[in-house]
Amino acid sequence: MNLNNLKLHHKLVPDNYLKLALEAQRCKEIQIKELLEKRKLPDVGWTEELIEYVIQQLAALDNNNFEHKIGLGEREARMASKLVINRNYGFGHGIGRSGDLLDAQPKAVGSTIVAQLSNALVLDVIRLQGIKSVKSYFIAPMATGMTLTLCLLSLKKRRPPAKYVLWSRIDQKSCFKSITTAGLTPIIIDTVKREEQDGLFTDLGKFEENLSCIDREEILCIMSTTSCFGPRNCDGIISLAGLAAKFDVPHVVNNAYGLQSTYLTHQLKQANSAGRVDLFVQSTDKNFMVPVGGAIVAGFEESSVHTVAKAYAGRASSSQSLDVLITLLCLGKIGYQDLVSQRKLNFVYLQKQLEEFAEKHHCRVIRAKANPISLALELKTLSTDVATKLGSMLFTRGVSGTRVIIKGCNKTIDGFEFAG
Amino acid sequence: MNLNNLKLHHKLVPDNYLKLALEAQRCKEIQIKELLEKRKLPDVGWTEELIEYVIQQLAALDNNNFEHKIGLGEREARMASKLVINRNYGFGHGIGRSGDLLDAQPKAVGSTIVAQLSNALVLDVIRLQGIKSVKSYFIAPMATGMTLTLCLLSLKKRRPPAKYVLWSRIDQKSCFKSITTAGLTPIIIDTVKREEQDGLFTDLGKFEENLSCIDREEILCIMSTTSCFGPRNCDGIISLAGLAAKFDVPHVVNNAYGLQSTYLTHQLKQANSAGRVDLFVQSTDKNFMVPVGGAIVAGFEESSVHTVAKAYAGRASSSQSLDVLITLLCLGKIGYQDLVSQRKLNFVYLQKQLEEFAEKHHCRVIRAKANPISLALELKTLSTDVATKLGSMLFTRGVSGTRVIIKGCNKTIDGFEFAG
Amino acid sequence: MNLNNLKLHHKLVPDNYLKLALEAQRCKEIQIKELLEKRKLPDVGWTEELIEYVIQQLAALDNNNFEHKIGLGEREARMASKLVINRNYGFGHGIGRSGDLLDAQPKAVGSTIVAQLSNALVLDVIRLQGIKSVKSYFIAPMATGMTLTLCLLSLKKRRPPAKYVLWSRIDQKSCFKSITTAGLTPIIIDTVKREEQDGLFTDLGKFEENLSCIDREEILCIMSTTSCFGPRNCDGIISLAGLAAKFDVPHVVNNAYGLQSTYLTHQLKQANSAGRVDLFVQSTDKNFMVPVGGAIVAGFEESSVHTVAKAYAGRASSSQSLDVLITLLCLGKIGYQDLVSQRKLNFVYLQKQLEEFAEKHHCRVIRAKANPISLALELKTLSTDVATKLGSMLFTRGVSGTRVIIKGCNKTIDGFEFAG
Amino acid sequence: MNLNNLKLHHKLVPDNYLKLALEAQRCKEIQIKELLEKRKLPDVGWTEELIEYVIQQLAALDNNNFEHKIGLGEREARMASKLVINRNYGFGHGIGRSGDLLDAQPKAVGSTIVAQLSNALVLDVIRLQGIKSVKSYFIAPMATGMTLTLCLLSLKKRRPPAKYVLWSRIDQKSCFKSITTAGLTPIIIDTVKREEQDGLFTDLGKFEENLSCIDREEILCIMSTTSCFGPRNCDGIISLAGLAAKFDVPHVVNNAYGLQSTYLTHQLKQANSAGRVDLFVQSTDKNFMVPVGGAIVAGFEESSVHTVAKAYAGRASSSQSLDVLITLLCLGKIGYQDLVSQRKLNFVYLQKQLEEFAEKHHCRVIRAKANPISLALELKTLSTDVATKLGSMLFTRGVSGTRVIIKGCNKTIDGFEFAG
Repeated sequence: MNLNNLKLHHKLVPDNYLKLALEAQRCKEIQIKELLEKRKLPDVGWTEELIEYVIQQLAALDNNNFEHKIGLGEREARMASKLVINRNYGFGHGIGRSGDLLDAQPKAVGSTIVAQLSNALVLDVIRLQGIKSVKSYFIAPMATGMTLTLCLLSLKKRRPPAKYVLWSRIDQKSCFKSITTAGLTPIIIDTVKREEQDGLFTDLGKFEENLSCIDREEILCIMSTTSCFGPRNCDGIISLAGLAAKFDVPHVVNNAYGLQSTYLTHQLKQANSAGRVDLFVQSTDKNFMVPVGGAIVAGFEESSVHTVAKAYAGRASSSQSLDVLITLLCLGKIGYQDLVSQRKLNFVYLQKQLEEFAEKHHCRVIRAKANPISLALELKTLSTDVATKLGSMLFTRGVSGTRVIIKGCNKTIDGFEFAG
Repeated sequence: MNLNNLKLHHKLVPDNYLKLALEAQRCKEIQIKELLEKRKLPDVGWTEELIEYVIQQLAALDNNNFEHKIGLGEREARMASKLVINRNYGFGHGIGRSGDLLDAQPKAVGSTIVAQLSNALVLDVIRLQGIKSVKSYFIAPMATGMTLTLCLLSLKKRRPPAKYVLWSRIDQKSCFKSITTAGLTPIIIDTVKREEQDGLFTDLGKFEENLSCIDREEILCIMSTTSCFGPRNCDGIISLAGLAAKFDVPHVVNNAYGLQSTYLTHQLKQANSAGRVDLFVQSTDKNFMVPVGGAIVAGFEESSVHTVAKAYAGRASSSQSLDVLITLLCLGKIGYQDLVSQRKLNFVYLQKQLEEFAEKHHCRVIRAKANPISLALELKTLSTDVATKLGSMLFTRGVSGTRVIIKGCNKTIDGFEFAG
Repeated sequence: MNLNNLKLHHKLVPDNYLKLALEAQRCKEIQIKELLEKRKLPDVGWTEELIEYVIQQLAALDNNNFEHKIGLGEREARMASKLVINRNYGFGHGIGRSGDLLDAQPKAVGSTIVAQLSNALVLDVIRLQGIKSVKSYFIAPMATGMTLTLCLLSLKKRRPPAKYVLWSRIDQKSCFKSITTAGLTPIIIDTVKREEQDGLFTDLGKFEENLSCIDREEILCIMSTTSCFGPRNCDGIISLAGLAAKFDVPHVVNNAYGLQSTYLTHQLKQANSAGRVDLFVQSTDKNFMVPVGGAIVAGFEESSVHTVAKAYAGRASSSQSLDVLITLLCLGKIGYQDLVSQRKLNFVYLQKQLEEFAEKHHCRVIRAKANPISLALELKTLSTDVATKLGSMLFTRGVSGTRVIIKGCNKTIDGFEFAG
Repeated sequence: MNLNNLKLHHKLVPDNYLKLALEAQRCKEIQIKELLEKRKLPDVGWTEELIEYVIQQLAALDNNNFEHKIGLGEREARMASKLVINRNYGFGHGIGRSGDLLDAQPKAVGSTIVAQLSNALVLDVIRLQGIKSVKSYFIAPMATGMTLTLCLLSLKKRRPPAKYVLWSRIDQKSCFKSITTAGLTPIIIDTVKREEQDGLFTDLGKFEENLSCIDREEILCIMSTTSCFGPRNCDGIISLAGLAAKFDVPHVVNNAYGLQSTYLTHQLKQANSAGRVDLFVQSTDKNFMVPVGGAIVAGFEESSVHTVAKAYAGRASSSQSLDVLITLLCLGKIGYQDLVSQRKLNFVYLQKQLEEFAEKHHCRVIRAKANPISLALELKTLSTDVATKLGSMLFTRGVSGTRVIIKGCNKTIDGFEFAG
């Protein structure tokens, strides 16, 4: 609606009033122009009105929202419920084409822009967080675990005979399942304690040992993890990257909720400089505060990431991209950085409070220095029963995100047994 | 957002795709251009998306929605709740200025356009319904009764010594109260039966009698009614208009829910040709299917209507204008006319069914020929108790809009007693 | 939806999970119960979700939202556009009945509750602001000026021969028009300067003079104003109330944007104790941060306020009540009081800054001590041209709510001439 | 909000009015009770208001929407943008747990109900469409192709040495990619012409030949397709199911947009009776008119489907389930069946028109009898240029869903070459 070009009758509104009001619109137009032309995260977050306006204008570019549409034989983007249309802003085509998640769709220009623009803003955040050398990246509309599976499958396409993934153990089911679901065999390398240092560390020796004795052709990749529950530390990804380079095997980093921590992104950056990192994957919910269900695949080379995008069979949901786009526009650079600093302060505060509490109750907070996002409290002094009860007490009091681990309790996942 | 002028990177979307999508927007732009430049009701109703788009763009022109606003000492259009902002599309300034409801507001260009545009579309509907000679009209954000009061007060400003309103009785409280609240004295002229004709008619003789014997200076106006509950007929407004012209007194027509009936609008048109009609007032809810609370003041001369608009003290709510604007854009000319024809068909159907029912139960449907919108059923054969019970039975069965009148039950309103 | 009573299959969700989730709902249920049973403003503002939930549940009680509705002959609350339904939450019946704005509507139980509840919360705010003795009050869906007209008309019903309103001049059009539109004659009493005191004051001597010499029967009321543009002070309403009591004439206070100032509400309270205040009227937009178009009529006696509610002819829009209800629930007691204190601080800050500016530019800020809401800057040192230019400069820079007054410029409203 | 239990002051609303209004709510309560207790698709579609009400009440059961939530260390379901919260109705936890997509989440009772309820309603539709014997089913938040990959990977978990998929060729990229992405080798079996019959048919002979000569252990499954572009027919899935049973290999059916055709669902039902069908997969967008991005995995045995649900690594987006739930509630049984019949009628109409057109232009509509959802037009008489131009003409005229295939144009996907 270009009111500038319209000739409004003075009875509708006097010319001079209109002129002033139109001038006031210019700063919005500039904001939009900058976003779409430069594809950069704005410094200051946008108003909800402006965000919705742009989203709606983009949605209007999808052919299901054209006024004169016929849709002979078209089976897509026909939505039966107005509620569904509204909550999806009219977007129905999904993103990508069956050949490639990153392809533009001729029928869905708006969806295409949403997908590419949200990818571009995510890039900005990755760089903002310190990983300047990142080259390629895209939002995958699947959970982090399933996205890791897709990454492994895309590596497998290039290394058909490979079947092993060297995996630094982390007690998180979906990470492990990402390997077995891909039809691959994990070689589990337990973390180890170090003298004089709190927490659990990557067993680099075991990694080197395995890389040396297994046929390199049969190793699909090393899989390491940055963000995890304490007392486990972030994996020694710089050293692992070195090993990956030395033995020439791919290296995939599970950076699930690590993008928000500059400590962890710094590790990633260093790892790439010092050796080999093919792909690193992070969830959208944990790093961008959107609903569960999306992940970001990123890498330091265009080709490795693009191969993953091409491996996704079919067109994908645009829901995740849309949520990320809205959220990043709403936060802006400053808003995102505020959240990052605030999290750091909260962490320090929690650590201090927990240490005071621990002292009082004769237990101990484990200081895993290379884990800037999770804290562990050793409850040795408590019996199994009391510890279990503590967990449920926290839950019913509305405290979520905590886990009580009982010693000596083994689990079997996909045929593999895990101790403790 | 003028995507035509932006230079989008091909990575965002290929140029040729974008070009096609932008071309598809043109028909919307033409619709908007036509609406704002010609100020005519579109033939076909608009989609909700297009309506909201235009409303939002207009709201952006009000200064409370500017991005760089300061608002030093401004006490208006500051809304505390986001829910309130959303449901009002950001409009907060109301319409008009304290001097005149029809004045443009320099701070609220969008509100001004909404007010003038909804007025313009209402004009189109009035003309569509046959009253081509209407000259002036505006939406008043008050109930029909209160708006009639305002009309009377504005006439009073021009005829200070006048105190009587010659009123053809209709059993509807707010119409009567509109006179007493204005501080005026109603001269109630009962309707009469005519030989060989069903229903109740205006007592033209009594009107002429009163006009002849009361000092003309003391008569503020004649007030007649078109739409009413049967068995009362539409007033003989053509003859009353003749009397008004002959005796040179103003004539105000209460056309509450008459705009939807071409029979009644035809009477109005004829009345103006044959004599004098100063103002006719209709409710927005009953004629435009919007929530209760607005009315339309219309007339055949610019000055008489404008005086009413100037009499409203203060700026007025824009809610009513907004609801009317949205509804008329949603219906379009065709949609509105469909509703009008459908109502006619429903009326004929109801009449037929009611007559069949009446025959079976030995009662009688009163054929008030000059009342095309309400039906009366004579329940002489029922006792008072049974009749009352019938009313409550209809109500609990979800049938609304019916009234059971018990004979011999008098009421007093503002000191005036009404029989039956 | 009472999930407590449902027997959900364990396949849908395990019982123990559900039980915990249902328990977490209880605090919301208590909030709702307290609101509806006690009809008090909650201390802490509600979440938007909870507000919308209650509003939607209330809307469901209006018969146009029943699922099995027939609507034979019903002409109200039929809305054609879904957008209009949505923005009005399905409310269409308006509030009150043609006989009385405060009457309950059998067809519209939800609308009735919204109207009464918003009235009740407004009462809470009035009391919170210090006027504990207020007895009656209601939200009128009209601008403050038009509502003042309605107040005057309702007084006129009780004092038919009265025709004069003794009015302490304030340069605000709609206040003056509220008198002339009611068909009454204002007796304008100019404000005066006092020695050694900044600002303009009520000319109490002139009031007493007029009350003494005009036939008391012919005086409808005294009309005073609290909130106004500086350098005029709040009227001496305590003294005026004393005069009103002494001479036994009604006293109407225009408290347009005074409810937010505890200084002004204190004056009102004192005025009622010291003499006579029949009605005081304030706008909803300026005191409750909702869109323009509503006012609150309040008084210290049930009957005087109820007479005003009965004078409104017809059912009224529920839009204003709804906006007030939502806003007050959103703010809560604490939120409202925060806004009030913040305004005070802003005022002091602005005054200080303006005084510094004035000193630098050799002009003077007028210290009208009895005006806690508006500041005046004497621009004697500027020529007329420069002063006019200043006004337009402020406007184009997005500073609104300011007025530049040029000396020696007279205006005529409704036949009355005003100097300066 | 249980108004039944509240004691409302008569000033808020008279008791008898309230009682009637509450009674009118009962039919809604019954609808909700039936839905949640019986988990069946309602016969008649629900109003948008009722749907939103239930969705909002369910969302309130997720712990991120609790009023007293703390969220210590919780990284999920924290949404930064109100727009994102609104469009997701406050759902943020996704569905399932990292171990199993079908698991209930203790923190997200509402999300869990949404997931299970939408699954249950989908079951109802599958049965409604004739496949009464379906046992297990769930909505996967991935495109059909990617979901087929997941199915293959889950089969692979049970048959580790298998590496071949016997695939009846269909020219649709994502179907083929679903095999290669899973790291498997497709054995492509071209469709064949039959004498005296139009269209292309499954080459059953070739299938039997392959099944006979390849080591059974190395065959992962047969993959067949029902819905496809003409002139290809639906695969002979009844015979293929027979072969699958005879040779004891799994059989996966790609039923992408086949659920809407009772002809195709009948084939599926027969295939299961006559032989072996392990899994059949369909897209949600094409069968339920929701945005692109979801698929339904269904089977005739609980275990095979559950294995797929367990293979998904991580928690999944709830967006797809929510869209399906809303849409099915909006349509109801009758609405869904209407759409199905209407599609059939449209197909017959299109076929007739196309045949008339073909006759006029000397080309031929190919009557592929076993393809009830797509039509092919042989353009032998047109040159390559003209045919290409036809495609682009249809596109720019807003006709979507058509494809022009040029003869002799080969393509290579993932190293496999396809002729024509």
